[in-house]
Amino acid sequence: MRASVTPRPQARDAAALAARYRAVRAATERLAAPLSPEDCSAQSMPDASPVKWHLAHTTWFFETFVLAGARPDLAPFDPAFRVLFNSYYNAVGEPYPRPRRGLLTRPSLADVLAYRAHVDRHLTAWLAGTEATGELLERVELGLQHEQQHQELILSDVKHLLGQHPLRPAYRADLPSPERSGGAPALGWHRFEAGVRAIGAGPGAGFRFDNEEPRHRQLLGTFVLASRPVINAEYAGFVEAGGYRQPEWWLSDGWSAVRAEGWQAPAYWERGPAGWSVFTLGGLRPLDPDAPVCHVSFYEADAYARWAGARLPTEAEWEAAATGTAVAGHFVEDGALEPAPLGPDEGRDAPARLFGDVWEWTASPYVAYPGYRPAAGALGEYNGKFMCNQMVLRGGSCVSPRRHLRASYRNFFPAPARWQWSGLRLAKDGG
Amino acid sequence: MRASVTPRPQARDAAALAARYRAVRAATERLAAPLSPEDCSAQSMPDASPVKWHLAHTTWFFETFVLAGARPDLAPFDPAFRVLFNSYYNAVGEPYPRPRRGLLTRPSLADVLAYRAHVDRHLTAWLAGTEATGELLERVELGLQHEQQHQELILSDVKHLLGQHPLRPAYRADLPSPERSGGAPALGWHRFEAGVRAIGAGPGAGFRFDNEEPRHRQLLGTFVLASRPVINAEYAGFVEAGGYRQPEWWLSDGWSAVRAEGWQAPAYWERGPAGWSVFTLGGLRPLDPDAPVCHVSFYEADAYARWAGARLPTEAEWEAAATGTAVAGHFVEDGALEPAPLGPDEGRDAPARLFGDVWEWTASPYVAYPGYRPAAGALGEYNGKFMCNQMVLRGGSCVSPRRHLRASYRNFFPAPARWQWSGLRLAKDGG
Amino acid sequence: MRASVTPRPQARDAAALAARYRAVRAATERLAAPLSPEDCSAQSMPDASPVKWHLAHTTWFFETFVLAGARPDLAPFDPAFRVLFNSYYNAVGEPYPRPRRGLLTRPSLADVLAYRAHVDRHLTAWLAGTEATGELLERVELGLQHEQQHQELILSDVKHLLGQHPLRPAYRADLPSPERSGGAPALGWHRFEAGVRAIGAGPGAGFRFDNEEPRHRQLLGTFVLASRPVINAEYAGFVEAGGYRQPEWWLSDGWSAVRAEGWQAPAYWERGPAGWSVFTLGGLRPLDPDAPVCHVSFYEADAYARWAGARLPTEAEWEAAATGTAVAGHFVEDGALEPAPLGPDEGRDAPARLFGDVWEWTASPYVAYPGYRPAAGALGEYNGKFMCNQMVLRGGSCVSPRRHLRASYRNFFPAPARWQWSGLRLAKDGG
Amino acid sequence: MRASVTPRPQARDAAALAARYRAVRAATERLAAPLSPEDCSAQSMPDASPVKWHLAHTTWFFETFVLAGARPDLAPFDPAFRVLFNSYYNAVGEPYPRPRRGLLTRPSLADVLAYRAHVDRHLTAWLAGTEATGELLERVELGLQHEQQHQELILSDVKHLLGQHPLRPAYRADLPSPERSGGAPALGWHRFEAGVRAIGAGPGAGFRFDNEEPRHRQLLGTFVLASRPVINAEYAGFVEAGGYRQPEWWLSDGWSAVRAEGWQAPAYWERGPAGWSVFTLGGLRPLDPDAPVCHVSFYEADAYARWAGARLPTEAEWEAAATGTAVAGHFVEDGALEPAPLGPDEGRDAPARLFGDVWEWTASPYVAYPGYRPAAGALGEYNGKFMCNQMVLRGGSCVSPRRHLRASYRNFFPAPARWQWSGLRLAKDGG
Repeated sequence: MRASVTPRPQARDAAALAARYRAVRAATERLAAPLSPEDCSAQSMPDASPVKWHLAHTTWFFETFVLAGARPDLAPFDPAFRVLFNSYYNAVGEPYPRPRRGLLTRPSLADVLAYRAHVDRHLTAWLAGTEATGELLERVELGLQHEQQHQELILSDVKHLLGQHPLRPAYRADLPSPERSGGAPALGWHRFEAGVRAIGAGPGAGFRFDNEEPRHRQLLGTFVLASRPVINAEYAGFVEAGGYRQPEWWLSDGWSAVRAEGWQAPAYWERGPAGWSVFTLGGLRPLDPDAPVCHVSFYEADAYARWAGARLPTEAEWEAAATGTAVAGHFVEDGALEPAPLGPDEGRDAPARLFGDVWEWTASPYVAYPGYRPAAGALGEYNGKFMCNQMVLRGGSCVSPRRHLRASYRNFFPAPARWQWSGLRLAKDGG
Repeated sequence: MRASVTPRPQARDAAALAARYRAVRAATERLAAPLSPEDCSAQSMPDASPVKWHLAHTTWFFETFVLAGARPDLAPFDPAFRVLFNSYYNAVGEPYPRPRRGLLTRPSLADVLAYRAHVDRHLTAWLAGTEATGELLERVELGLQHEQQHQELILSDVKHLLGQHPLRPAYRADLPSPERSGGAPALGWHRFEAGVRAIGAGPGAGFRFDNEEPRHRQLLGTFVLASRPVINAEYAGFVEAGGYRQPEWWLSDGWSAVRAEGWQAPAYWERGPAGWSVFTLGGLRPLDPDAPVCHVSFYEADAYARWAGARLPTEAEWEAAATGTAVAGHFVEDGALEPAPLGPDEGRDAPARLFGDVWEWTASPYVAYPGYRPAAGALGEYNGKFMCNQMVLRGGSCVSPRRHLRASYRNFFPAPARWQWSGLRLAKDGG
Repeated sequence: MRASVTPRPQARDAAALAARYRAVRAATERLAAPLSPEDCSAQSMPDASPVKWHLAHTTWFFETFVLAGARPDLAPFDPAFRVLFNSYYNAVGEPYPRPRRGLLTRPSLADVLAYRAHVDRHLTAWLAGTEATGELLERVELGLQHEQQHQELILSDVKHLLGQHPLRPAYRADLPSPERSGGAPALGWHRFEAGVRAIGAGPGAGFRFDNEEPRHRQLLGTFVLASRPVINAEYAGFVEAGGYRQPEWWLSDGWSAVRAEGWQAPAYWERGPAGWSVFTLGGLRPLDPDAPVCHVSFYEADAYARWAGARLPTEAEWEAAATGTAVAGHFVEDGALEPAPLGPDEGRDAPARLFGDVWEWTASPYVAYPGYRPAAGALGEYNGKFMCNQMVLRGGSCVSPRRHLRASYRNFFPAPARWQWSGLRLAKDGG
Repeated sequence: MRASVTPRPQARDAAALAARYRAVRAATERLAAPLSPEDCSAQSMPDASPVKWHLAHTTWFFETFVLAGARPDLAPFDPAFRVLFNSYYNAVGEPYPRPRRGLLTRPSLADVLAYRAHVDRHLTAWLAGTEATGELLERVELGLQHEQQHQELILSDVKHLLGQHPLRPAYRADLPSPERSGGAPALGWHRFEAGVRAIGAGPGAGFRFDNEEPRHRQLLGTFVLASRPVINAEYAGFVEAGGYRQPEWWLSDGWSAVRAEGWQAPAYWERGPAGWSVFTLGGLRPLDPDAPVCHVSFYEADAYARWAGARLPTEAEWEAAATGTAVAGHFVEDGALEPAPLGPDEGRDAPARLFGDVWEWTASPYVAYPGYRPAAGALGEYNGKFMCNQMVLRGGSCVSPRRHLRASYRNFFPAPARWQWSGLRLAKDGG
């Protein structure tokens, strides 16, 4: 997921924003606290970034897009950071190449933390004294939303790094295992009638990224949506039935990926004499059959759905079902950093776990909504530039900040991506 | 484009079908006639196939899906062909790997032509004597539609092969250059009002592929559509203005492709002291400023549209505009094998050249229509398996058979593909 | 093996040379005769070339280095061939890239044969009328030696192409299988005493390539050399004993190649229910246990020798042993195109099969002899440019022309190469 | 350079050895002292290793090959290190893959330093109390020689890592620049008469690696050797004359490397408005015209020699010239970490700078000496396994420990390697 970065203007109370700024920034540093400088500097694949880079880049965002405007008299902390920690904003200069971020041993983690402290000090001082109400304050809010996205990436990138290590070391050895639930409920279905639905973020409803706009109408057919996400026990059935050896369930590109990558199960699954284990941020653990399956690619989600006689929902169907539902579930604040097993009664009355636990792959490629307009300037330069070759995921995961989510939120990743906590929920055409 | 292969049942007159069979099969062989055995055997890239392979694979289709059912007593022409000329039907066995088709020097071109003659003789004999009216006849029609798709691929693959040759040899040195038109008309716009539109092939309206079904309703906003495709003179303006050096016009993946592939202009364009030339099936020629631009990728089409202050139409918008329009334009039957320059008055009253000349990239990823159901059996096994990571093109090109096209026809290629006659038409949101 | 191309000056009888010219050129065309135009145009890997390219390149050599000097009035057959069929002579212009030779469908095989006829006609006419005795005649001889090298490459490249084909088609279905020999002799050893040996081609002894010069003295220790090459039965013992799964026998680069390439036996070996088969130019055949092993890389030869408690001979040891030995064995003129099984008494009195049957890998990297000087001009430009990262092979093979070989002849290939008829002979330090 | 690891038996005084052990181990840690944990953990290319890995691997060597024998009662510091820090000893278990060493963020640098302290404590305690005189003591010496090799690799790998960084940060900002010399002497030549020379380490002459044995006789022709290494001013002349654009100077593989890698000058050279700069461990500095050129590949050394009308010496010629010469020059103990400029009179009486400053590429591929025998056991398992596809360098460099070098020392790297301090000295055949 790359940050979509242009919010709609919205007045802000500077004091409340300052408090929120401190809270979000501190949360990021808490995520990095269990890690050594080496852990924070390594890059396990071109799609991932070092934690140190996330720490610096989010700070660069505030320095470049807020402080440079709010405090034009202030010298940059280090002019070189302008290049090193730019992700992809070509209007700000040629970014340092992403696959080589692991070679940036300088600045050190300590230097990056000093960079954070410097920007935090000046930004909060400015917030305390400013009368501003307009664009700069909105950019602070945008920077915080952006930082929350990177919080999630810190955890997925660290998991990928440690998961490559032959010793499977834990990010936090003290991470509690979720309690077993006593058994997930059988899969049920909830019916949604055909009709024209308003899709996208509505006016006046708080922060949203520009890709959630404009709100527009779509004509949906009747569909049914599963009462809960697919769980590990069900997905293991697909694996054991030979699903990864049978081309008939797979998209053509998906089957190519299965063969080229040697996939035999979701990422982080390991087969042992006592059954499946999964690597978690707390180390290797037995697979919990009642928890939602995660770390599957879109290809695997799609293949499973076909095998199960169903399909993935479109993002509009998902949003239609989720609109009006409370953002409840398991989030990063719960501290488990893995999806929780389903309890016996969940999903009886309405689809359970739409938010949190696992991102749900949809059947929808990531494209612009009708009438979409990118914002002006560097922040808006690239709002739509990732709208190709990616699929939309909805709902958030067990490592998402709860306040970061909403029914109209659109996450997106390429179809082969597996290193996020990505799972699926089944749908079918209505009878 | 890979063949989508399941037609809806439809009664057929066997005699008329036999005549059509002979005509289509002969047309394929006429396309191969100017080529040497070497020309027919080479493979210029993994995405392309040797002409000989096209000749054999289309024949394999009839042998496997028609003759094997119609004449179960008949021995296969050569049992090895079952593997060698299977494209991707896993249910028929493990296909021979596509990137290595150029190594299949055996069977020879002469052997493949004998294979064609054998299947043609038995299939037309069976057609002459059969009382069948059902599935097998429909499979003959499907095979003919499939063969027409491969006719177009023969020409694009040959163009790619010869275009790699340092001498830029002509496919047919006698190919006439289109006459200059005296100047293309200025770009105009046609307005289409918002409303619910029926999209997809309707019942009882002749052959269609399964990906055109089911017909369903979509809610479209008001939009305007350009009076004609973008022409070379316009696209050259984008090139000369530095469009290929400015990241702001490009999707992120598109900009990566520009840099990785070193793109500086559409495929087959060559800059010389006297201006742009283009490689055609008749050899190198001066670029005609008034002809539709072609051999652009989706990325280039999308970047041009952004630069021009417009966007690509969605496939539904395109279909809404094209429905009810006659399939008129320039097709393979015209014999030029390049798009024709625009005449002074074209597009005044309605969008011109929707059909033929150049395939038009749309803004729509290739996905299933709501309620799409693949057919049963090997033919239906993979109908939807290409519905990922591809973009839809509409309308047909100067190398498409005229009768192969219709308003609901969906062609599709990955975003970087440039070796088809692919161009674009601009659209905008309605005022 | 790339041609080393500067001979020492040597007077020639033009009439005898003309006869030899006709014979060598005709022999090349006989090698191509069983092949279709498609067979002659395909390229199975970057290291191999299409047969058509060999036919044209050898002709280009005569046109460029002889006819252009002998008949400056004569227009080139086709000026484009100057680039297309240049192998690596940068002084003659930028060569066409080797890995793309399979895309040169033009000129056709028929055109290339016409090119050969044109050059042959003019060259033999010139030879019939010339009084020349100097450099041009020497270049004719050089061209013939060069053509003989390409004759061998034609067969190895065709074998590689057909060996990739899933049907394993024969180059010549009528190729006789060698008779079984009744059992190879046990391995014996012949002792060579320490001393100073003259190595390299001596003065006045007929044609030689410049890499065989200058003749110089080397101090050799006492060594013993095996009475015959390693045979298939012995090598199969290494395979069956797990040699390809045990790193201890292998050079580090060799072990990497085994793992990266998935080698489990020599090239062209196939394991079946009835034991090992080998692909030959006559198709698949049972492995003859008594024939010399071939199609092994230097890595495999070296690993086998270590496993067998021996080592490979250096090229100086090999040459010291072969000097004075008649060039007897099995060559391309014998027509079997595979090494012959060893007869019961071979090697009793002296090392058998030093010439022909299989090229023997030596322990010697290919480097210049002391005092080596490349010749002037394009022909000499690159004489030494391949003297890096290659190993020397000695003796010739079953597809070498008998008259092409001698004790001082140095063939060379990179250590991983397996597509030549390359085998090995063991050596040990003297007691 | 990979460690060649089997010494010949040699009695040792345990107390002196303990002192030497402490000195060598401390020297290694001094090299790492200026580096952060991040610097020590990154891997800039597959051929390089993280400093942390060097620190751990050299310790693993003592733990595995000495302590495990000397103190079988002692538990391993961490059993996992057996795999993680094994370089290539397959007999000790499957090594962790080299290109992924940068992902080993665990153990941390602090843990690795604790590992060093643990092994040092136990090993020195054992040395203090042991009566041993045999193989284990020899293994200590071997481990120290091995560690000295890794000291040099630490510096070359760190230079490569920092040289990739866009800011070109210094390893030690306080590193003094060498003083300018006032002008290097003109190139002179020293003559060595033909004759039989003893090559290789003689008996009883202190530590040597097994690849220096056995001592044997070689017959050398008369040759002349340059009075000093090629200097930057001379090499810059080759660059400015277009040497990197002219194929005639290059081996075929070398020319391919020039084109594929885009080489335009030695590694670390940067062209600026004020002339050439070079990246050093002290940061970017102006090129010193009088210092020996370094960071050239074998291909560049060979091309320069050809351009200069000379050649590289063979390793036997080099050794013949160096035998009996004192090991004088500039080494790691001098602290400059770059070669020193040549003074006006150097090389007048004998070849100057044979030792230290820059490793000198020779014309000799790295092969076994006649009669070479690898030792038994894991230490000897692979002594010869790198004897393929590498070229020999002689003499040592400005980052070699002085006591590590001798006339018979054979270093070796693949022909394209440029990240060592590798230069060249010219030679010619004698008149």
